[in-house]
Amino acid sequence: MGEFMRQYWLPALLCKELPEADGNTLRVRLLGEDLVAFRDSQGKVGILGAHCPHRGAPLFYGRNEEGGLRCIYHGWKFDVSGQCMDMPNEPPETVFKDKIRHKAYPCREHAGVIWVYMGPLSPAPPLPELEWAMVPDENRYLAKRIQNCNFAQALEGEIDQSHNSFLHASHTQLKPEVFDGKADVDLWRKRDTHPRFVAVDTECGVLIGAQRDIDGMNCYWRLTQFLLPFYTMTGPYGENPARHTRMWVPVDDQTTMLIACNFHPLRPLTDQEIERMRRGSGAGFVAVDKFLPPDNHAGGAWRPQAKRENDFFFDRKLQRTKFFSGIPEFWAQDAAVQEGMGPIYDRTQEHLGTTDIGIIRFRRRLMDGAKACRETKAVPPGVLEPQLYRVRGAAAVLPKDADWLDATKEIRKLIPGTNPAGPGR
Amino acid sequence: MGEFMRQYWLPALLCKELPEADGNTLRVRLLGEDLVAFRDSQGKVGILGAHCPHRGAPLFYGRNEEGGLRCIYHGWKFDVSGQCMDMPNEPPETVFKDKIRHKAYPCREHAGVIWVYMGPLSPAPPLPELEWAMVPDENRYLAKRIQNCNFAQALEGEIDQSHNSFLHASHTQLKPEVFDGKADVDLWRKRDTHPRFVAVDTECGVLIGAQRDIDGMNCYWRLTQFLLPFYTMTGPYGENPARHTRMWVPVDDQTTMLIACNFHPLRPLTDQEIERMRRGSGAGFVAVDKFLPPDNHAGGAWRPQAKRENDFFFDRKLQRTKFFSGIPEFWAQDAAVQEGMGPIYDRTQEHLGTTDIGIIRFRRRLMDGAKACRETKAVPPGVLEPQLYRVRGAAAVLPKDADWLDATKEIRKLIPGTNPAGPGR
Amino acid sequence: MGEFMRQYWLPALLCKELPEADGNTLRVRLLGEDLVAFRDSQGKVGILGAHCPHRGAPLFYGRNEEGGLRCIYHGWKFDVSGQCMDMPNEPPETVFKDKIRHKAYPCREHAGVIWVYMGPLSPAPPLPELEWAMVPDENRYLAKRIQNCNFAQALEGEIDQSHNSFLHASHTQLKPEVFDGKADVDLWRKRDTHPRFVAVDTECGVLIGAQRDIDGMNCYWRLTQFLLPFYTMTGPYGENPARHTRMWVPVDDQTTMLIACNFHPLRPLTDQEIERMRRGSGAGFVAVDKFLPPDNHAGGAWRPQAKRENDFFFDRKLQRTKFFSGIPEFWAQDAAVQEGMGPIYDRTQEHLGTTDIGIIRFRRRLMDGAKACRETKAVPPGVLEPQLYRVRGAAAVLPKDADWLDATKEIRKLIPGTNPAGPGR
Repeated sequence: MGEFMRQYWLPALLCKELPEADGNTLRVRLLGEDLVAFRDSQGKVGILGAHCPHRGAPLFYGRNEEGGLRCIYHGWKFDVSGQCMDMPNEPPETVFKDKIRHKAYPCREHAGVIWVYMGPLSPAPPLPELEWAMVPDENRYLAKRIQNCNFAQALEGEIDQSHNSFLHASHTQLKPEVFDGKADVDLWRKRDTHPRFVAVDTECGVLIGAQRDIDGMNCYWRLTQFLLPFYTMTGPYGENPARHTRMWVPVDDQTTMLIACNFHPLRPLTDQEIERMRRGSGAGFVAVDKFLPPDNHAGGAWRPQAKRENDFFFDRKLQRTKFFSGIPEFWAQDAAVQEGMGPIYDRTQEHLGTTDIGIIRFRRRLMDGAKACRETKAVPPGVLEPQLYRVRGAAAVLPKDADWLDATKEIRKLIPGTNPAGPGR
Repeated sequence: MGEFMRQYWLPALLCKELPEADGNTLRVRLLGEDLVAFRDSQGKVGILGAHCPHRGAPLFYGRNEEGGLRCIYHGWKFDVSGQCMDMPNEPPETVFKDKIRHKAYPCREHAGVIWVYMGPLSPAPPLPELEWAMVPDENRYLAKRIQNCNFAQALEGEIDQSHNSFLHASHTQLKPEVFDGKADVDLWRKRDTHPRFVAVDTECGVLIGAQRDIDGMNCYWRLTQFLLPFYTMTGPYGENPARHTRMWVPVDDQTTMLIACNFHPLRPLTDQEIERMRRGSGAGFVAVDKFLPPDNHAGGAWRPQAKRENDFFFDRKLQRTKFFSGIPEFWAQDAAVQEGMGPIYDRTQEHLGTTDIGIIRFRRRLMDGAKACRETKAVPPGVLEPQLYRVRGAAAVLPKDADWLDATKEIRKLIPGTNPAGPGR
Repeated sequence: MGEFMRQYWLPALLCKELPEADGNTLRVRLLGEDLVAFRDSQGKVGILGAHCPHRGAPLFYGRNEEGGLRCIYHGWKFDVSGQCMDMPNEPPETVFKDKIRHKAYPCREHAGVIWVYMGPLSPAPPLPELEWAMVPDENRYLAKRIQNCNFAQALEGEIDQSHNSFLHASHTQLKPEVFDGKADVDLWRKRDTHPRFVAVDTECGVLIGAQRDIDGMNCYWRLTQFLLPFYTMTGPYGENPARHTRMWVPVDDQTTMLIACNFHPLRPLTDQEIERMRRGSGAGFVAVDKFLPPDNHAGGAWRPQAKRENDFFFDRKLQRTKFFSGIPEFWAQDAAVQEGMGPIYDRTQEHLGTTDIGIIRFRRRLMDGAKACRETKAVPPGVLEPQLYRVRGAAAVLPKDADWLDATKEIRKLIPGTNPAGPGR
């Protein structure tokens, strides 16, 4: 699975984490590999192996100066390509320097994110054409956090629309008669807690639909896109909606870095929207400012204050009076169940039902992808077809017997300048 | 050994830890298995597997309401028998719900303790007829703590009367001439520091006797009962004595939960006695209030403040002036040597002497029991004969050549309404 | 390698850690083995196995009294030779006591250090005749710290003179024109950052020379002694110089205890010198007082406050303005790169250059020594020839084509009453 993941570009850092040329280094860990990131004098980002190829000193302490990162132990210096630029502890005439090329992965800065390619193709393939990454910077808000479980376990929480009726319910009872009338989608979710699921493979992922009955005649459909290897897009709410995409990047087998993007396809985000996102109050959004400041250790940065050790601020009084889950923050509700399974849950203990069809399809797609990659050595889907990422999560109200796939065809396409509404607010 | 342990009822919690119907859930770990406990609307206690059988969400966060525990992830609900009562994310006509029976173990509330049966018999066998559990509630005081070593290592400290002359000595020298004359048993222990041990198998355990010389003519006998699989009863002191029983319940291979009961066979405990027990000043008693408040994590609750990391408040000045061990609290003296061996001591490093006869016999009984259980599949001793637990620890002064077994026959029996004295105060 | 190490005397403790007869016990861990140290009534030091041979109770809690260490569990008492002196829980006529000899290693107190011999020879071989240990007490200052990596990784930092031009540079640029003219050795290091290395086996170690050009005609030589199994001596600076020797003692595979001695061959250290050493401001010296107070746990004592978890107080502002490394304390600069490799670095990732000749020679010497010890069972070099340790690190300015070995022959010998100068201040 690691080899499969390496075929794809990985979001590694937010650009603002490396704000300036010749600035601070950062520890990065991806796919179980320890790396160090820096921005050189010209502003180019390098991601190198964490340890100097000479004798293993940590390049995190390196001096970032004059076009490269210089190890503090013996002064070896590397550029962003990993090429040794200087080896001042060897005689000037040495050719040893030229032979040393440190492990370095191609990086791109795009849409506020530093991307890294750890795969075999040279040159590196194109970046995926994701909508959030194609809108102007001011239309987008990026957040990040570390979650202590494997990426699949986390991602499966996202593609499962069924839990919305429960885990994220702001009401505390399952009975529809206590509906407070605020939002129609909430009502539909409360009335029909057992959506019918469909899941179909797409060229580069899985499209998962959840159908809820509204009035016996019409249905509320919400469609989630899973895109290889770890992208998810859920359906929007209301007129001219903001949208979001999440990236569940494997740090190692037991750790996931979530980078979440909220964006508006057509206009800048307002200060109010950004503030709401910062405070983490938006639907499913993760606020940077709620987290401890990055301490620049691969193990410690971006870990939320609500965490497994404090039960994510689980509060039984709140559970009785306000939130179905008892956990105040939206994102923490998800994290509590995903991490609560342990770092790698024993899947043989599961009993999957009809609402887990999307998850089953996702697992199959991922496993088949990894197997095909190993067996055929073929470049996996999407790597060389960046346009396959030009899709959207979607939501719609359709007549009961409508052909949902056909009816949502247009709203699932990324058509620049458009922004189809979702039902609800 | 785990399979053997499962044949017996296990004390899992104090009833007061689950004080009210529809109240808080609790994490429980027994025999290496993670569980969750709750009290339902009717007051019945359930102990279920820790993770929802659907997709592994932790039931600890579950909503305890209307006769069952409801998972916050998708609303699956279970009654105390593990039967799925509701599956609101599946269509109402589903039969999937009826097929889901979550792991659940029979529970009983008895004598202030929640007991659980993790074994194969159905219906579950009767509870053991232990004296402490048969007296009125007001005659009993229950305490609990977690110890970081395996249960056998801990229990072996209890059945070893020999260490009383040393580890628990309040004097600081071994010489009898400095005896302060306060208590005769203390004097006998101080004078004769090398008791003669005898150990005989009983129907459901081992009876261990330690004989100390008093004056060349008479001997002080103290008799400890070990009862399968982890009960111990030591001998009493003085007229109309309070008594105690300890239960060394395996949490996992490296952790033991001690539940200790001090009780009086004939009368309620006085406020003074209870206060002394709370303060942990009683002989060998463990005070609840000395411990950190339960934080409701299986790993963190009931752990004493005196612990290995702070050397159990070991104080060299006290060692020179007041306590032989240098450790102020009685129970912590035991814990210091039992945990100090490490979680599982390498027994090949031991050199057992004549005072370890009881320990050798205990190990043999336990190993033989586990082997027989595996090989013959027979129900082990005591499981179906609850009356075998109607015994007492005992103490007596006997002529040197008395037949100790015969002479203590009556005082080792549980005869309701009686309470044989032990020598000393 | 452990067997090989056991052939040699090991510095285990500073004498002042066991200041008084019948005083405190100390936990000691050496070569992965847990031990306990105490000073008996006559002032003799004993180092015994950490657990009582009876039933494994920790002897750390033992009563140190009347010529031996008495276990608090059952009163067994051991003298410094491990012989059981008393077994009060067995009858007086027992012969069991005489048969019990606990694991005990021969100890010597010499030059402020408690040495232990864990090897096979009986009687134990003589102590190595190291200069620092032969000067009067007032001529010497001993420091100690624990480092979280294996001993070879740490020691290799010491025998590598090449990193002085970088890691320890107080300037922040590699360009010679900004030299501030304070010290000639600093200038030479700054001008010639790529010393030529030579390494030759000695009878009991490796002599490593680093040659730096001064003016095209003369060279600055600094010679480091490695002595089996873990001693290092670097060259001195200036007239009538203070000298130092470091001992990199393996605590276990992932932990090293550094005992460092600064001393003057001819005169007592001044208060000013000692104060500078205490503050850790001396060249490469480690100050005791900068560390957390020993908490008497094998795992916690002598660990510096600057540590991996806080990046050794790495400060990027300092890196730009004051220190090449960005790490304020000299010793911590070394520790940062040595520990930063991880506890055991994967050596297959290295790319060794011409300045690593000494390290390569050191590894070879150590590996060959361990192999020969295993295969031939011969007593390794130096164990029975204590006079082989009568050597010195050295430094000199020599004509470019001088025979460095011959020219430094005298100054590398320990000749009492002499103290050859090193260049510089």
